[in-house]
Amino acid sequence: MKADFESLVEKFKAGESLALARAISLVENGEMVAGEFLERVGERSACARRIGITGPPGAGKSTLIAALTSCFGTEEKVGIVLVDPTSPFSGGALLGDRIRMAGLSQNSDFFIRSMASRGSLGGLFGHSEDVMDLMSAFGFTRIVLETIGVGQAELEVNNVVDSVIVVLVPESGDGIQAMKAGLMEVADLFVINKSDRPGADCFLADLEVALDLFPEKSDDETGLSWKVPIVKTIATVGEGIQDLLGYLEDHHNFLQDSGKIKTLREERIVDRIRAEISRQVHKSIWTNPEVASVLTSGLRQIDSGGETVHSVAENMIKLITKKEDT
Amino acid sequence: MKADFESLVEKFKAGESLALARAISLVENGEMVAGEFLERVGERSACARRIGITGPPGAGKSTLIAALTSCFGTEEKVGIVLVDPTSPFSGGALLGDRIRMAGLSQNSDFFIRSMASRGSLGGLFGHSEDVMDLMSAFGFTRIVLETIGVGQAELEVNNVVDSVIVVLVPESGDGIQAMKAGLMEVADLFVINKSDRPGADCFLADLEVALDLFPEKSDDETGLSWKVPIVKTIATVGEGIQDLLGYLEDHHNFLQDSGKIKTLREERIVDRIRAEISRQVHKSIWTNPEVASVLTSGLRQIDSGGETVHSVAENMIKLITKKEDT
Repeated sequence: MKADFESLVEKFKAGESLALARAISLVENGEMVAGEFLERVGERSACARRIGITGPPGAGKSTLIAALTSCFGTEEKVGIVLVDPTSPFSGGALLGDRIRMAGLSQNSDFFIRSMASRGSLGGLFGHSEDVMDLMSAFGFTRIVLETIGVGQAELEVNNVVDSVIVVLVPESGDGIQAMKAGLMEVADLFVINKSDRPGADCFLADLEVALDLFPEKSDDETGLSWKVPIVKTIATVGEGIQDLLGYLEDHHNFLQDSGKIKTLREERIVDRIRAEISRQVHKSIWTNPEVASVLTSGLRQIDSGGETVHSVAENMIKLITKKEDT
Repeated sequence: MKADFESLVEKFKAGESLALARAISLVENGEMVAGEFLERVGERSACARRIGITGPPGAGKSTLIAALTSCFGTEEKVGIVLVDPTSPFSGGALLGDRIRMAGLSQNSDFFIRSMASRGSLGGLFGHSEDVMDLMSAFGFTRIVLETIGVGQAELEVNNVVDSVIVVLVPESGDGIQAMKAGLMEVADLFVINKSDRPGADCFLADLEVALDLFPEKSDDETGLSWKVPIVKTIATVGEGIQDLLGYLEDHHNFLQDSGKIKTLREERIVDRIRAEISRQVHKSIWTNPEVASVLTSGLRQIDSGGETVHSVAENMIKLITKKEDT
């Protein structure tokens, strides 16, 4: 196993795609800790630009990603992560999305990984963040995270990427509904896809009014601000994709010039440190035999009213922290 | 503040509803730790039966809950928690649901609380669990947790309640979709509400076929098993509610007789201990000035490649754990 690990590290550093795929699988299955692997291969989490794409099912997110990535410069290496927060049980890939993007994955400069999100200490995107870090360490320069926009997931995506594109269609409703869904807070860019359908201009106007109600995202220090653009696209024929790319570039420049990119990335790293602390602490607590017996007797005591969740937790922590000595 | 706390404890123990409401607000706003309060008022988390109700928007969950609770015996004190996992930003109550249940809340034996779920270390239901524990400690005998069934939330509900009712309507699709959505794994009881609508019998038959594909929930030790029933209801006129109550009772008896109720509750307590450990550890880590300076220099080092998330986390933990001494 040790030899396997070393060989994986070597192959990963040599840029073998199979090693990346293997590393991701090991992390997903809980057989390897991403942080430990990244420590060996060298962290380069800041290298890749991270773009999140979210929106309701059927908005054409996958097609848009395909169109977008084929317009990226040839020097870009693109990693795509598809997250389906609705299937915690399947724990596997979304065949449909894979098939839809099949054209892309034949190009060796793309790497697609689809995964179900799982509830973990790291939140909905726990494993996705690991995967993005692995992709970044592997040398990808653009990482696109697609997530189906249902509830919480949609709204957490802005914690894990630089730019969030919210994809809607003319039928998506109205500006008020978008506001209620919390989309204004999340979106750095809006896309109205399938914009050749009836109602596109009406929806665009409506969304603009709703957007005007929200303050521009501005930076206090530099005075720079970002006005969320709305881009009309027809992803199937590539219409509007160059505009979208231009706005993405603008947003990246805004993040750079305002210094926000540094803050964003630092926050992400602190979040990862927080999750890593939880992981390490829980590992040492729950594998400690002394702690186990405190837990067992604690559970009995809770039943009879002698202890509480709070006090049992405290007793368990005492066994591994310095507090006990004082 | 200290005096306020003591007075709140007293009023809570005296059974004043306002004290319960106040305690819940304090916990929700992060101004009070539920565990510490429960320690003072006495844990009685095992006292209340916990019922989860989930399903898509518009399935009539609120109406069903209203119908169900008015059929509970007069000796039962019922707490209702409404969780909307789709609005992490609003952080407030769902006015609509409150209005729909207004008739109920005039009855003093009911207590309704609606809340937005928030991303927290404790998962989607972190605060809801606290609220249910508070309700239980307050003396409620039945607690109903309603959550809108979108994605993850729907599927996590079975970690926090004894019995899960999945409410669907004839238009909810077919058995395959229910399977794909992971409902078979979650549901202890299915309800087809609005069953006077066209397609109800067809949907029922379809769901039965899908259910048959899943193994019955059985208990290895006792050999007892639970066959998930499908109940047709028309909640607005109370039809099928008595059947549903009967099945709920059956399920409770199954949990008792098979001993599963004990396992369920123990798992919940262990989960709470786990969350409480995270909370206490993070509190002592992130408020420690020594740790803060390790973090600051660590962040710089990560930037330059000298440290990794993994190693910084390790260094921070070392400052508060015994490891350092060895």
